[in-house]
Amino acid sequence: MIMTDLIAKKVEGKPLTQQEITYFIQGYTQGTIPDYQVSSLLMAIKFKGMNDQETADLTYAMMHSGDVMDLSSIQGVKADKHSTGGVGDKTSLVLGPLVAAAGLKIAKMSGRGLSHTGGTLDKLEAIPGMSIARTQKQFIEQVNRIGLSIIGQTGSLVPADKKLYALRDVTGTVQSVPLIASSIMSKKLASGADTILLDVKFGSGAFMKTLSHAKGLAQAMVNIGKAMNKDTRAILTDMDQPLGFAIGNILEVKEAIDTLKGQGPSDLTELCIYAGAMMLMQGGRVKTLTEGKRLLKNLIVNGQAFEKFKSFVSSQGGDIRYIEDPSKFEQSAHVINVVSDMGGYVESLNALSLGEIAMKLGAGRATKDDIIDYTAGIVLNKKIGDEVNQGDVLAVIHTNLEQYEAWIVPLRDSFTISSAKVRAPKIIHATVK
Amino acid sequence: MIMTDLIAKKVEGKPLTQQEITYFIQGYTQGTIPDYQVSSLLMAIKFKGMNDQETADLTYAMMHSGDVMDLSSIQGVKADKHSTGGVGDKTSLVLGPLVAAAGLKIAKMSGRGLSHTGGTLDKLEAIPGMSIARTQKQFIEQVNRIGLSIIGQTGSLVPADKKLYALRDVTGTVQSVPLIASSIMSKKLASGADTILLDVKFGSGAFMKTLSHAKGLAQAMVNIGKAMNKDTRAILTDMDQPLGFAIGNILEVKEAIDTLKGQGPSDLTELCIYAGAMMLMQGGRVKTLTEGKRLLKNLIVNGQAFEKFKSFVSSQGGDIRYIEDPSKFEQSAHVINVVSDMGGYVESLNALSLGEIAMKLGAGRATKDDIIDYTAGIVLNKKIGDEVNQGDVLAVIHTNLEQYEAWIVPLRDSFTISSAKVRAPKIIHATVK
Repeated sequence: MIMTDLIAKKVEGKPLTQQEITYFIQGYTQGTIPDYQVSSLLMAIKFKGMNDQETADLTYAMMHSGDVMDLSSIQGVKADKHSTGGVGDKTSLVLGPLVAAAGLKIAKMSGRGLSHTGGTLDKLEAIPGMSIARTQKQFIEQVNRIGLSIIGQTGSLVPADKKLYALRDVTGTVQSVPLIASSIMSKKLASGADTILLDVKFGSGAFMKTLSHAKGLAQAMVNIGKAMNKDTRAILTDMDQPLGFAIGNILEVKEAIDTLKGQGPSDLTELCIYAGAMMLMQGGRVKTLTEGKRLLKNLIVNGQAFEKFKSFVSSQGGDIRYIEDPSKFEQSAHVINVVSDMGGYVESLNALSLGEIAMKLGAGRATKDDIIDYTAGIVLNKKIGDEVNQGDVLAVIHTNLEQYEAWIVPLRDSFTISSAKVRAPKIIHATVK
Repeated sequence: MIMTDLIAKKVEGKPLTQQEITYFIQGYTQGTIPDYQVSSLLMAIKFKGMNDQETADLTYAMMHSGDVMDLSSIQGVKADKHSTGGVGDKTSLVLGPLVAAAGLKIAKMSGRGLSHTGGTLDKLEAIPGMSIARTQKQFIEQVNRIGLSIIGQTGSLVPADKKLYALRDVTGTVQSVPLIASSIMSKKLASGADTILLDVKFGSGAFMKTLSHAKGLAQAMVNIGKAMNKDTRAILTDMDQPLGFAIGNILEVKEAIDTLKGQGPSDLTELCIYAGAMMLMQGGRVKTLTEGKRLLKNLIVNGQAFEKFKSFVSSQGGDIRYIEDPSKFEQSAHVINVVSDMGGYVESLNALSLGEIAMKLGAGRATKDDIIDYTAGIVLNKKIGDEVNQGDVLAVIHTNLEQYEAWIVPLRDSFTISSAKVRAPKIIHATVK
């Protein structure tokens, strides 16, 4: 088997066999197939696509390029959830304790990618004392005891994806449904959970700009799950504006706490309840979505969801005094109101621009070596559909930078104000299974 | 300017600017842009193409990636001709002396690629004593004196093409009209001639399989020439069967000598007269094709074309006793007739298969390190349209290999014999200017 034949085949739009895909992934992971042949094949895949069988074969080969987690010593249904990412997405912090309180087992290993405002691991580390470094044994023990642990990736999970993603990033081959789907699903499948729920976001602040593109990706991933006999479902959710109000690590932890106590933003709360109910159905805990939602709402009202979050934090060394009294969290030196210079209704929010401003204020990393300022970020005061009067606060800047003034105008410009009334967008648009 | 932006632009099918193309070619030649980004861009070009302006810009950037020949010290019109290659193509050996005898200046630098039966340089070196290594000064002096010199490439002509071609060869990006056209034309333009005639071959034994593909390539190359204000024309010629009868180095030199003496195969003779007349028109020596053809035929009849060949050979150290009496050339140990096992008419000849068999018999190189047996090859006795009786000789094997018997059946199978009469194909199908 030689790589030029595989490339020629894909250029003609013919499907690659399982043997060919395995050869390519193994060869690339082991370094016997050079970057320049792989990038050429990836570009041909971008143009010609892959059918469901090829995509499943690619995922399987990638999944087995490194360690595959064995969670069999955890009793009960191990549920996993993945979000394709967006601005202000603190869903994992809420959803984990919520469904663990309902009896599912959440054994989550997160990677630490670059993002506008840090990932789940960064948000957890914003809680004083909290550690995301745990041995495999501690991790399993904690999940068995309290139903929930979130730690940094250990071992060598899907090394093929690390190499492929780095190459795709510099060769114009990121945007390809089979390549995105196999990248996400290989990592989810290697993580060893019994059920997978995918939160595929779309809109101005998301990777996928339209509902139809998001549906295509969701369906590709669900099909991979089906091919591997793993209960996989997807929800398609709005990312035309940030999720909730808070963007930035400590700010988001506080909002997650509010949400677990029943005082969170309506969009975040609705998403967590809906996604959680889906996970309960996948795990066989409930029969209907309605039953699942009722159960989860009750766990918020009776305080069990919040208690589970506290157990989780204390089990991983976090100081729960901050959780019990979030006002103890450190605050940025500068907290500045950005006010509207006109009245009307918020027509749109530039989620991507808000994410970038939050990053510049200190909340995220532009390169791997940047240090995150946990206190920094933005708290929105208005979202799409809200009425605004001239002089109303649109958002609040939190930063330790002395030169924060340059960000006031861009932040204001991230809001589009219309004179006509605007409907608030719905958060959940469709499910795919 | 960054390479990922160029790739993204081409993926969307947008044209690249001259600045972007120059950046890419210079960066790749100098080693600051890695193979894997270039192969990705090449694949995007393969799918999305390039317009005439981009193709010309690419050619210009490649042409200037290394030395550009200065032939200004040669008096008269410097004419060049390029063939896209095929089996039994010894045109340069005939055409060079022919048009030089008519007063054009042929200062030809050839590369030594891999091919079924050696290139022009190998054929010249099959003449005892003949040297293709000449200093720039000797080269210019010889062209000024006798009108013709053919030598091996000196200096660093189009290093970008060397790197790009090697990469295209292993990344499935050879077959792309703008990439092929810019590769050929950058080398022709860097060689410094005043006029360029392209012989674009099509058919089973050529790179381009159909007339319409060949026309597309020819037009792309002529357009590049136009964009550079260089008189560039193309002829589209048949390569469904080998050109002439001889395939193999000494065998082809002998056939070239026969042709220069007016006793060559009709297809080779017609092609050389036609191409030569085109070159005379390009060089302003004649006004019409008819006038050019008459002039060249006369140079064959009066012996001046053959005399020019002898001057050429002796000027480069070749022993003209071999040219005056070709029976002096060394001959293979084994000369074997391959006879037909049926009667009828030759319907088709598998030119590619004949080229490969000739190579296996010793006439060509499969790798750069292979040594060519100048005596080896095939001489056809029948071509398309010829009548064949059972037991007639179809072709003659020339080889020094002891194990030649394995090639008899494949050689016979390269002929398809039909019971119905078949028309001999015409050699010249179209011209493009």
